[in-house]
Amino acid sequence: MTSAPRTVRRAAPAEAVTVTTIASGSRARRPDVVAGEEPLEIRLAGPSGRATPIAVTMRTPGQDFELAVGFLFSEGLLSEQSELRSARYCDLDGDEAQDFNVVTVTTSRLVPATLRRRQSTVGTSCGICGTATLEDLKDRCPPLPAGGRIRVDVLTALPGRLRARQRVFASTGGLHAAGLFDSSGAMLAVREDVGRHNAVDKLVGWAAMQHRLPLAGCALAVSGRVSFEIVQKAAVAGIPVLVAVSAPSSLAVATAQALDMTLAGFVRDGRANLYAGEWRVEEG
Amino acid sequence: MTSAPRTVRRAAPAEAVTVTTIASGSRARRPDVVAGEEPLEIRLAGPSGRATPIAVTMRTPGQDFELAVGFLFSEGLLSEQSELRSARYCDLDGDEAQDFNVVTVTTSRLVPATLRRRQSTVGTSCGICGTATLEDLKDRCPPLPAGGRIRVDVLTALPGRLRARQRVFASTGGLHAAGLFDSSGAMLAVREDVGRHNAVDKLVGWAAMQHRLPLAGCALAVSGRVSFEIVQKAAVAGIPVLVAVSAPSSLAVATAQALDMTLAGFVRDGRANLYAGEWRVEEG
Repeated sequence: MTSAPRTVRRAAPAEAVTVTTIASGSRARRPDVVAGEEPLEIRLAGPSGRATPIAVTMRTPGQDFELAVGFLFSEGLLSEQSELRSARYCDLDGDEAQDFNVVTVTTSRLVPATLRRRQSTVGTSCGICGTATLEDLKDRCPPLPAGGRIRVDVLTALPGRLRARQRVFASTGGLHAAGLFDSSGAMLAVREDVGRHNAVDKLVGWAAMQHRLPLAGCALAVSGRVSFEIVQKAAVAGIPVLVAVSAPSSLAVATAQALDMTLAGFVRDGRANLYAGEWRVEEG
Repeated sequence: MTSAPRTVRRAAPAEAVTVTTIASGSRARRPDVVAGEEPLEIRLAGPSGRATPIAVTMRTPGQDFELAVGFLFSEGLLSEQSELRSARYCDLDGDEAQDFNVVTVTTSRLVPATLRRRQSTVGTSCGICGTATLEDLKDRCPPLPAGGRIRVDVLTALPGRLRARQRVFASTGGLHAAGLFDSSGAMLAVREDVGRHNAVDKLVGWAAMQHRLPLAGCALAVSGRVSFEIVQKAAVAGIPVLVAVSAPSSLAVATAQALDMTLAGFVRDGRANLYAGEWRVEEG
């Protein structure tokens, strides 16, 4: 059996989106560009050509061979540049759209059997296909509430409240903050961490330990950018509104749209960009 | 045999360091505070109490039980908050200083055997002890060069050059940048990514594929903060000078000091804070 040739879309470092801009109380739809984010599976092969999956990292497409090689050096799985033989994209069975999300690096040295054994039990279906990930995520998340609306003036004030609270905690300049608010803008909890994903995990853990999940009436505000990972964590906790001081990634936007989560970025000084779930943001 | 009781230091959310501040051409030593960063090993136990190591994350100490619980929910390893039984720090054999870097979460549900099998092959000595990690890192890194000096005016100009180049690439506001420069400040390569670790890996991979490792005469500039992971990647590539626009973490500082890597933070407008390896920074 042969199948008709399909157009393979190579992932781009930046992706076009349409955003609803809120400024001075008025809304406008306009085209925007967000940083590309897609999973990359990195595989290592020895002289036999047999490839071992090593890791999946969320990355901005571009210089994927460099990323794979550099990652393997950083992790100590490659130590001699003279052993490098090749780096190439992989053909996956029949899924051409994913071909550019898997890279195999081949070396002239044998891949240790312990590494092969360790990795072989992990399996390769670990999030490499964006669509599978999204379906998996939908399956294990509580549906986001049909409500969860928030007033625009409440939403745009959240980053300022987070910053004000953050100053009390630390003056190191090195911490990300995540804050949980109710729909009136009252602060429920704030956590800080060198890792932004940890700050969100601490909030989710706090809620779980208080038996407050799902957080259906809440908004989550984060001090930095929004990646797929942050949207995923908010979704698992059932949080319908995600507010960021800075930019979202392409996969953060796509995931929020698929889940109908409200995603606001560049929220500061009364302005906001709405990338998904605009309907939850009400006039003041 | 009994051993004398030792003082157990609980890791702090912020750590005191001494920094050399450069401003208007003069240097001063002063106390400073950096964000705490330490590894946390998260373990999951079922009703039998048998604990399975799940992951090690670099985190800011504080709310560690929340972090462990939230992480397990985010990863789908816990799904019902009613199943939560306890979260506690673990006793490790005789290493009391590490007791606060391991948390076991106990649930009333059986931990799947597949999870136990998968994890049991990974082993638990995966970087949980900061000292072990540091020794391991020293072992597998090329020694940093006794030279690698850089003029102070060259060093403080690097973030500006990185920013200037970054503007050309993207206007998404969502990308971290990492740039490799020679000791005269000439730019060798710049890479961007949603993940700052990926941007550095891309540079290291670029160098490896060009057989340029170790990067003994180079300085690495990054657009954001500096975690342990970034120092580690620079060390593996043999880069003696690391320059950041923003703050370093406690473990980044400790690691740079241990490796005698030059670490500069808050580098902007002719100012810089030197946290380690000050001797490489020469007057202009």
